[in-house]
This record gives sequence, structure tokens and C-alpha cells, in this order.
Amino acid sequence: MTVHSRKDAEALDAADPLAPLREHFDLPEGVIYLDGNSLGPPPRSALKRLHETAHNHWGKDLIKSWNTAGWIDLPKTCGAKIATLVGADPNDVIVCDSVSVNIFKLASALLKLHPGALAYEQDEFPTDGYILQGLANLTNSPLIKLNHQGGPVEAFAGGASVLIKSAVHYKTAAIADIAAWEAEAGKAGAVIIWDLSHAAGVINLDLEAAGARFAVGCGYKYLNGGPGAPAFVYAQRKAAEKLNQPLSGWMGHAHAFDFAGDYAPGEGVKRFACGTPPILSMSVLDAALDVFADIDMSAVEAKAKALGDIFLLRAQKLSLESVSPGIGESRGGHVSLKFKDGYAVVQALIARGVIGDFRTPDLMRFGFAPLYLGYSDVWDAADAFEQVMTSESWNAPEFITRKAVI
Amino acid sequence: MTVHSRKDAEALDAADPLAPLREHFDLPEGVIYLDGNSLGPPPRSALKRLHETAHNHWGKDLIKSWNTAGWIDLPKTCGAKIATLVGADPNDVIVCDSVSVNIFKLASALLKLHPGALAYEQDEFPTDGYILQGLANLTNSPLIKLNHQGGPVEAFAGGASVLIKSAVHYKTAAIADIAAWEAEAGKAGAVIIWDLSHAAGVINLDLEAAGARFAVGCGYKYLNGGPGAPAFVYAQRKAAEKLNQPLSGWMGHAHAFDFAGDYAPGEGVKRFACGTPPILSMSVLDAALDVFADIDMSAVEAKAKALGDIFLLRAQKLSLESVSPGIGESRGGHVSLKFKDGYAVVQALIARGVIGDFRTPDLMRFGFAPLYLGYSDVWDAADAFEQVMTSESWNAPEFITRKAVI
Repeated sequence: MTVHSRKDAEALDAADPLAPLREHFDLPEGVIYLDGNSLGPPPRSALKRLHETAHNHWGKDLIKSWNTAGWIDLPKTCGAKIATLVGADPNDVIVCDSVSVNIFKLASALLKLHPGALAYEQDEFPTDGYILQGLANLTNSPLIKLNHQGGPVEAFAGGASVLIKSAVHYKTAAIADIAAWEAEAGKAGAVIIWDLSHAAGVINLDLEAAGARFAVGCGYKYLNGGPGAPAFVYAQRKAAEKLNQPLSGWMGHAHAFDFAGDYAPGEGVKRFACGTPPILSMSVLDAALDVFADIDMSAVEAKAKALGDIFLLRAQKLSLESVSPGIGESRGGHVSLKFKDGYAVVQALIARGVIGDFRTPDLMRFGFAPLYLGYSDVWDAADAFEQVMTSESWNAPEFITRKAVI
Repeated sequence: MTVHSRKDAEALDAADPLAPLREHFDLPEGVIYLDGNSLGPPPRSALKRLHETAHNHWGKDLIKSWNTAGWIDLPKTCGAKIATLVGADPNDVIVCDSVSVNIFKLASALLKLHPGALAYEQDEFPTDGYILQGLANLTNSPLIKLNHQGGPVEAFAGGASVLIKSAVHYKTAAIADIAAWEAEAGKAGAVIIWDLSHAAGVINLDLEAAGARFAVGCGYKYLNGGPGAPAFVYAQRKAAEKLNQPLSGWMGHAHAFDFAGDYAPGEGVKRFACGTPPILSMSVLDAALDVFADIDMSAVEAKAKALGDIFLLRAQKLSLESVSPGIGESRGGHVSLKFKDGYAVVQALIARGVIGDFRTPDLMRFGFAPLYLGYSDVWDAADAFEQVMTSESWNAPEFITRKAVI
């Protein structure tokens, strides 16, 4: 339904099966948090787990916790939880390192099997391109920068051998048709690494059904794993077994504690583990993922879109241009609006307790995470937004002057 | 002085200027922890900081904490603290990723500048060799496995171009003569990456004075940064500026938040940052490092050696063979004793509250971290060790059967 009033929003909240999930979070008073697409807030269970891991395990059981608290298995147990959210086999996801590092692992391993050009879209999240630039330089491989507007046919016509592509675009929140892209990749004998950073935990992914074989993703956005939470790698078992990734650290070894002289990759996706994982951060992610247990991800995706629709409709009335898919269209969890002084507007909103972010040069980005935001919250945020825009209260020295780094 | 009795040990404790540091730690009752060389225990300040970071910063200030809590600067501020411990310029160390990932970054960047063979010693900590194997495979570079017994002249005579070498050996605790190795590397036009994992925080390193230009190290051993704490990279400014490391993630960019299309490396060692760092884990390390403020590292090294000497003397009386430098000789923070059933002995000791570790096939390893261990503690641990060995109480099914992974 179209939301024309706060009453409409309240009615949707009352009927929302996801509304009780809000209780998992302890958000600060007076804040409407529209930046869960950048950093999710802490689930209560995650803070509890962090205390237990730090005080009881690290503090009391010390080194023994690697065995007794299951630290050694965390990359796999945590990965299995993510797998169920993205439509993968629970054995095919491992949690490790950062998105950037994981892109390098997959891209370099795939390049060995599929020699040729590395490719990415020019308007992709920067690190995706930067990492391919680094790999191309190291291996003297050709690098193709694709036009973001092009589709899969165009992408592979240029000779791309290993392509990285976001499932949900970090600026626009456009959702890629994974199956269509995989079909074209298959015809071209090429492979795709899906970047799920802005997709996992907010859209209803089914990697297996769509034929996706390789992906990376982020733990600290919609998965609420904490600032800089470890990332993940998905590699379908059969495909993974052919890969030799060069960041072959001891934790990816088939038998790490044999201390063998030569590296032997672990089974399947385990070979994408590398060094010793940051257990405090990973434990938090592991607990945060439990909030997703038994959630219908299609309901999450539908709610994210509906929340975004409310905000887009209000923005339309302010004659603001959106770069995101329109009202009623498929969309990830955020919307981005163009405004020359967007930085100042976002700062003015933050001062009023409505937290979004700004992406240079002119995008105001607002995220609508369905686990802890209600329809009324978004309505209220749109009120604040309208007031800031129409009163031009953003046009004040404390908002105009750039101070914040992120 | 040679310690012949518990009374001698108590006298040393009474005169120990480092003894008050014990108060920074809240070690469990009834435990003598001889495994700080594998996982340091939590400093009280680190647990306090973790709570503050998780609850106040992440929980209350949310995304703003990147600016307001200084998260964005942590890799450098934390790196500067490590720099003072290892004799480096505070601007030349950055905290990021794992030791394994960081070895790859340095080795691949150096290989571009110094094409030729990658080299490591066969008895080195496994991940060091594994990573070079992965890099050699990716870049089709030759790989040299050196004899661990050889010295620097022999190492470079074989044509090594980029060598990795531990400053303190993970099994023996032998300390390498960094200046001597660097002198030979200089003559050969080769470079050395120092692995400081078992050295930082326990021996008195002076990287600048010894001519070391590149190093990696671990945050969770003697630095007490928590399980899987982030690691660090040291690269001397002038040398760093020539390096293009291929894990060129957005956090290493000169201007990450410009979201520029092309990667441009940050100044100096900043270019070794890659993805978004795990802030919870890194904050803990940052606070743990404050325990080292104003400590004389030569006193730390001397105490570590003296503690090891006590244990070695007692082990001699049991006719056990040590693979570590002998009594009175230069040595890192641990000693390793050979015993066929070492696994069972270590388990039997753990059951009595004396925690060491076992490294396959036959090494019992005991670490003597000077910040929280006293001379009497080591004397008491040696008592327990003697009782377990002489009574053969280790020879029981619950100890003999291998259960622990680590």
C-alpha cells in the first residue's frame, strides 16, 4: 500500500511480522538510524557474547578456548549461518579477512584457471576495482573497466575473463539479475565474483538457484557484525576444489596443526581461510547472525523496499532526483538522492537524530534496515528531512564545513 | 644469579622492577600461564576499552564513531605504539590484517622491485613458507627453501632475492642477528622481511639501528591484543614509498573517501592497509599496548631470559633435551624441550594449572612473558613439571589421547 500519512505507516507497523525483531536491538533514544547499510547497530545478543568471549573465554580459559569455546571452528560455523541467508550450501561459506582481501583471493585463484582479462564496472564500490588493479599489476594481466550502464552481454563481449559485480549497487541499490549475468558468463567461459556487501541480510538471495559460484560479502552492514567485522567467501564446493588461492596461510591448510612443510589446501571453501582470525570480532558477528534465525528473507526484502518507497515518495514531493530504482521497483535496502549540498543536509539531519550518510560528490544515502526500523520511523525521518530541506536549515556554517571523514 | 631454590626466586621477585606490571592482568586463580607466546592474557585496560568501544561507541554513537572515537586513525595510532617497542619511527608501522596477509603484501611488492627468487627457511613458522609458496605459484617465481642451520652468507649465496626470516624462532626462541643478516642482504642486493611474531613485546628490538627495513608481526602473543588480534606491517618510509602492494584495498588509498576510480597508494606504510579493519579487536590491541608505555624493553628481554634459565636448569636435572639456546645465552621468551610423549605431558600439566603448549612431533614449549610472570611462578611451574615427569602421571588415558586441536 502507498503510505500517505503517519497513520498509514502505523497501520503497517501494527501488521508487520518483522516488528518484534526490533527488540533484539538497543538503539539510542531519539535516533532514527538510516545507516545500517554502512554499519549495523549491535544486537543485544552480540554484546552479551562479546562479554562472554572476552571475560570468560579469553580471560579465564585463555589458550584452551580455541578448543573449548569452539574458536577454531568459528569461521565455518559463522559461515554456515550466512550461507542460509544467501541461498548457499552451509559448507560453502567461510568467514575470514575483509571483502578486499577476499576479492583478491578469489580473483587471483580464478585468474589462474581462466587466464585473460580482469573486469569491473567503473562505478562499482572503489575497493573492488582497486583490488583488481593491484592483481592486474602484479600478474601483468589486462584489466577492463566496464561501463556501469551496460548489461551482461556487453560485459562479456569485451573479453572479460574474471568479472566482479555487486549484487546490490552501493550507490543506487539496483539489484543485479544474477541468473542472467551467470548465463552470459557461462556462454563466454568467464566467471563472476559477486560482491554481496550491500545485499546479504537485506535481499532474498538464492545463490545456488541463480547459478552463482563465487561471492564475497561484508559482515558489518546488514549482518550487524560490528565495525569492521570479518567478511566472507562463498565458493561452491565443486568449483572451490579446483582453486588454488595464493593467500595460502596456515588456517586454510588441510591440517594446520601438523605444521607440515608444504601447503595443502583445505577441503572446499576452507582453503580461503588465511591467517588467525580476529576472534573477538568474529564472535560478535556469529551472535549477530542468530537474529536472522528463522526469518523469511523475502519478507525482509519486501519490507526494505516498502520502507524505501515511503522515503522516495516524500523526496519526490521535494523535487529531489533519485538515482535508485523507483517506487514499486525492485531495490536493495537504501535509496540515494542527488543534491549539490548533500553533505550539509546529512549533517543537519544527524544533528536532529536522523542518521544517513553522504557519498561524494553529491549523494545523500539513506538505508532502511528492516530488522530494527518501522514504517513510522521512516515516516518521521522523512518529516525531518522535509523540514531540513524546506527550511534550508542545512545552510549553516556548522553543517556546510566538512569535518567528518566518513 | 642462578636460582637454586624458591627462596632465590622470591628474592628476585622482590627486587624486580617489572613486578608491578602484574597488576595490569587479572589471571585466573591457580593458573601459571606459560603460553603467552601463543596467546597473551587480557590486560584489564583492554577489557575496559572493549566494553567502551562496543557499548558506548558502536552502541550509542554508531557510524559517527569512525570520526568521534578515532576509529579511522586506529591503524596508525596503534601502529605508532608498536613502533616504539620495536625501534621504528612511529610513522612507519601500521596495524592491519593478519601476519599471513601482511607477508603476502610485503613479499609481492618487494618481488616487483627485486625480481628473482623468494626464500624461506624450512623450519620457519609454516605460514611464512605457505604464503611464499602461494605467491611463487601465482607469479611463476622461483622459490628457495633454505636450510635452517645456515647463516646469512649461505642464504644469499643461493640467489635469494626476497627472504623471510623470524627475528625469534617459533620453536627454539633463537634470536637472529638482524644487523648481520641485513649486511649480507645489502651485499647481495636482496631484501629481508622480518617476522617479529615471537619477538615483538619480549625482546629489545631496534629495527632502525639494525638496518631492518621491512617487517610483519603479531598482535596476540606478547602484545596481549586478544585472540587473532590484528597484525602489523613495518616499512621504513623511504623504502615504503617505492612499493606497490597488490592488496590495494580502499583503506590504503591516499584519499579513501574521495571514492576515486583509480588506486593511489597512501603515504609510506599507510599503503599497506587494505580493507575495513576489525575495530573491536583493534581497540583491544590498542589498549593492551598501553601496558608497555615507559617500559624498558632491555629489562623485559633480560627477565624473559632469566625466567627461561630457571626452567632450563630444572629441565637439565630431568635429563631433557632442549632445542633452545642454553642457560645464559641470548634467547627469546620461550624454551622448547624434546620429549616423545610431550603432548601427554603438556596435557597433564594443564590439568594441574600449568599451561604450556605442544608442537608436533615432540616439542613441549613453555613461554615466559615477563609482564605477568614472576620468578617464583616459574619455579613453581618447574616443580609441577618435575612431579609430572618423575611420577609419569602424564601416562594416563585422559592425557595420552589426543583431543585438543591447538
